[in-house]
Amino acid sequence: MIEKKFTYHQIGTITSPHKETKGMPIQPSSAKGIKGEIELFSRYSDGLKDLDGFSHILVIYDFNKSTGFSLQTKPFLDDKAHGVFATRAPQRPNPIGISVLKLNAIRDNRLFVENVDIMDETPILDIKPYVSAFDGVDEEKLGWLSEHIDEAGFKKADERFE
Amino acid sequence: MIEKKFTYHQIGTITSPHKETKGMPIQPSSAKGIKGEIELFSRYSDGLKDLDGFSHILVIYDFNKSTGFSLQTKPFLDDKAHGVFATRAPQRPNPIGISVLKLNAIRDNRLFVENVDIMDETPILDIKPYVSAFDGVDEEKLGWLSEHIDEAGFKKADERFE
Repeated sequence: MIEKKFTYHQIGTITSPHKETKGMPIQPSSAKGIKGEIELFSRYSDGLKDLDGFSHILVIYDFNKSTGFSLQTKPFLDDKAHGVFATRAPQRPNPIGISVLKLNAIRDNRLFVENVDIMDETPILDIKPYVSAFDGVDEEKLGWLSEHIDEAGFKKADERFE
Repeated sequence: MIEKKFTYHQIGTITSPHKETKGMPIQPSSAKGIKGEIELFSRYSDGLKDLDGFSHILVIYDFNKSTGFSLQTKPFLDDKAHGVFATRAPQRPNPIGISVLKLNAIRDNRLFVENVDIMDETPILDIKPYVSAFDGVDEEKLGWLSEHIDEAGFKKADERFE
């Protein structure tokens, strides 16, 4: 296998109350009610047609504050090291983030969103409608997270990934 | 806002029975039981530690067969045009795909997966554990898809995105 590279272009930026890593929610589930705004470059406005019919969106972004990665890492929710692909740590071989956000309204090229667990000024790469029939499953196994999942609702980020 | 660019590196490749776009399932929900295999470059093997504890994974990949995009597009499930961000069409400003796959086993750098709706030889960019507490919501509104969601279970791709 030859390793290919893929270059993507920022399509917009999210504004959020999370100005620094420390203390920010680690997942949308612990960011209930926190509001933010995604502004797309205006040339993409036409691509938003009919998205306002959906209550939730999948937002794909670059963890642009994250630098480097380890193949094994201690995530926020545990003190043991796990493989980076078994965690949601922002420091990964490709620092791509995904969040399911509530979509409250769209005005021109601006999306008003809720449950925001994303850092202020994070570059946005893609937006898709969230469809539980496609994106939701009832997992039977949660691995190392099963013992810690109850903490995810209130646990905040520490300086681990600064 | 200045548009930034982000370059990501392929971390592996998926082998799947879908050799051509036509006739392939359009979502994991219509790909139940279809098996595939993700092979990571061996230097990433250590990053898979403990991932086998999870029953499902989020797989992020490049729609490398997709070329160009329109801001408004007719998706497989409708004959009306919608904004590209209101669809899951592979032809998008950044052709990034996401699928929730069932993880059956991991051996060294190989992941044996199920419910595969991804084209054969698609380059993989990231793998994360799927956690319904983070990734699953009960959406209240499904927009244009509400009238067509029942078709998603059996509808196959046509030549629209070839």
